[in-house]
Amino acid sequence: GTSYRIASIPGDGIGVDVTVEARKVLDRVAASHDFSLSWTEFDWSCERYAKTGSMMPADGIEQLSAFDGLFLGAVGFPGVPDHVSLWGLLIPVRRAFSQYVNLRPVRLLPGTTSALAGRGAEELEMVIVRENSEGEYSEIGGRHNRGMENEFVLQESVFTRVGVERIIRYAFALAKTRTGRVCSATKSNGLIHSMPFWDEIFAEISAEYPDVHAEQCHVDALAARMVQAPDRLDVVVASNLFGDILSDLAAAVTGGLGMAASGNINPTGELPSMFEAVHGSAPDIAGQGIANPVAQILAGAMLLDHLGETVAAQDVRAAVEKVLEEGAVQTPDLGGKSTTAELGSAVVAAL
Amino acid sequence: GTSYRIASIPGDGIGVDVTVEARKVLDRVAASHDFSLSWTEFDWSCERYAKTGSMMPADGIEQLSAFDGLFLGAVGFPGVPDHVSLWGLLIPVRRAFSQYVNLRPVRLLPGTTSALAGRGAEELEMVIVRENSEGEYSEIGGRHNRGMENEFVLQESVFTRVGVERIIRYAFALAKTRTGRVCSATKSNGLIHSMPFWDEIFAEISAEYPDVHAEQCHVDALAARMVQAPDRLDVVVASNLFGDILSDLAAAVTGGLGMAASGNINPTGELPSMFEAVHGSAPDIAGQGIANPVAQILAGAMLLDHLGETVAAQDVRAAVEKVLEEGAVQTPDLGGKSTTAELGSAVVAAL
Ligand SMILES: CC(C)[C@H](C(=O)O)[C@@H](O)C(=O)O
Ligand SMILES: CC(C)[C@H](C(=O)O)[C@@H](O)C(=O)O
Repeated sequence: GTSYRIASIPGDGIGVDVTVEARKVLDRVAASHDFSLSWTEFDWSCERYAKTGSMMPADGIEQLSAFDGLFLGAVGFPGVPDHVSLWGLLIPVRRAFSQYVNLRPVRLLPGTTSALAGRGAEELEMVIVRENSEGEYSEIGGRHNRGMENEFVLQESVFTRVGVERIIRYAFALAKTRTGRVCSATKSNGLIHSMPFWDEIFAEISAEYPDVHAEQCHVDALAARMVQAPDRLDVVVASNLFGDILSDLAAAVTGGLGMAASGNINPTGELPSMFEAVHGSAPDIAGQGIANPVAQILAGAMLLDHLGETVAAQDVRAAVEKVLEEGAVQTPDLGGKSTTAELGSAVVAAL
Repeated sequence: GTSYRIASIPGDGIGVDVTVEARKVLDRVAASHDFSLSWTEFDWSCERYAKTGSMMPADGIEQLSAFDGLFLGAVGFPGVPDHVSLWGLLIPVRRAFSQYVNLRPVRLLPGTTSALAGRGAEELEMVIVRENSEGEYSEIGGRHNRGMENEFVLQESVFTRVGVERIIRYAFALAKTRTGRVCSATKSNGLIHSMPFWDEIFAEISAEYPDVHAEQCHVDALAARMVQAPDRLDVVVASNLFGDILSDLAAAVTGGLGMAASGNINPTGELPSMFEAVHGSAPDIAGQGIANPVAQILAGAMLLDHLGETVAAQDVRAAVEKVLEEGAVQTPDLGGKSTTAELGSAVVAAL
């Protein structure tokens, strides 16, 4: 069968703990579907930064470019400022490989309950399509009059026509394969340059998809709606920052961050895509064997989908659901006493 | 007794409906506390814009400057773009009068239930201190290469030392009068110019308040926390945009937007402050007599607090709570069939 070359970057903290388990699951499902995963492991992390002064080597992007897929744990460690760790690894990879879609499916898994009163799985099924290459996360800006009374900082957001069109078009195409509904997050009343531009392009693209129901909602009201009426949402398309906030919120409303996977996707397939859990490195519980590996395992399923191994991906999701539904093996965040490895092994056994 | 000069700007849609009721309540409580409110009404609104091309007259700010307090309904109307209506009235007032604090208390009122499973009033008591004069809402920016393939928009956020220091200091001072806990919303990992500056000033000011527990949280994680662990939050201090999102979310988590009041406050008292409901003008239900006036009435209580009439303010809040607790008079959003005016009158009767 086919062999896929996968770069694994466990990173820091629980990123390492959960990646081990996800790999166990992925190797097992590959074996029964006649393909194999050839892993290359990279120690790029805050630990590496502490030793060498950089998160990854100078030719890091080049090293990754030949892989069929990238599998990231999490990065971040006390003592290394976030903006160093992220702009030294995660964000450069997203950008160098034009992974302009950050896809974050959200649903309530069996055996888990929503934080919202009286909401079940059928009302909590959405996907956040987050712009992942530009917008509010920008290197442009700076600090003036440092230390003086009239000190100030400028931070530029950058929205390009190319960037906005492609993410919105992706969201509409995705909606056609689902319920046919797209909601765009805006804030054109406050952010009077960037968001009216976003809205204008949203209106243009929506005209190309007359059979998709398009609506827009200010991000503040949309956050409220995720809590008060999440059932009316399906595909939510949002800028980099808004998508970041809304996807954490959506994860919280459903099973929590321990369950949420994401893909940093280059839809052309010309450059590698990267799959990761939405959660961070959680240094406070790292190495204790108590982290929930489900998000990382589901990120693995997204990787398989991306490789075209959709049946295997579906098997992984089904195995996870079976284990959660049975409820015999649960990490502490799920209310149980099982370890990270026990949950990983239970999913392997369920396959 | 004292007479306070209050400017009332009902605005559009349900802003008009709810302001009438709030004024009934305020006049009634004033009468029994030996002060009076002398109202001047302004028709500034989108309706005015449609007729005259401007939301308020050219000397609007000057006209308001002599008042002891400003009472705003809501602005916004279909056909008038939000950025026109808001930057033509709400935002200029906030800025011209240095109303740099947007104070948004959040709690679960009696007779209402949280959208969150298993959360009661004691776990849902917080206040969002939102920066209200600068930050992400800025006029600086523009559009380049219009209509071309390489078109892009820049949107500048502006954070000044003066602006950040004063809002954070306000939050710490407020925390001293409450539980002694402040949580700052950041996103220094994504917004690498503005938010590290915000965090640095937060650390400086927190050193001035050794008895206040200071923590910071990325805005995405904080949104999740409002849903998963709101009980650990009290004073939340946030930038203009983050405060906007978090306060809508906090309102949704508690009784909903029909209950949330806010004050645009100039803490020096040299220029007038403005009080309003957090909700918008809801044109779809305007004029039908079904809007919930509670948020606007509670905004009136905040106005009274600001005028120094704290006992009267407390009476208004108690009357609202009594009516909600009894549950006999409820607008449709609360599950009842009463009208806006009936709920207003019930609060008057409870006084
Ligand atoms: C209408 C809009 C500009 C405004 C804001 O975001 O400031 C509103 O949402 C609010 O929260 O007061
Ligand atoms: C760590 C941070 C920069 C990152 C982001 O906001 O992109 C994370 O929160 C995420 O959601 O992937």
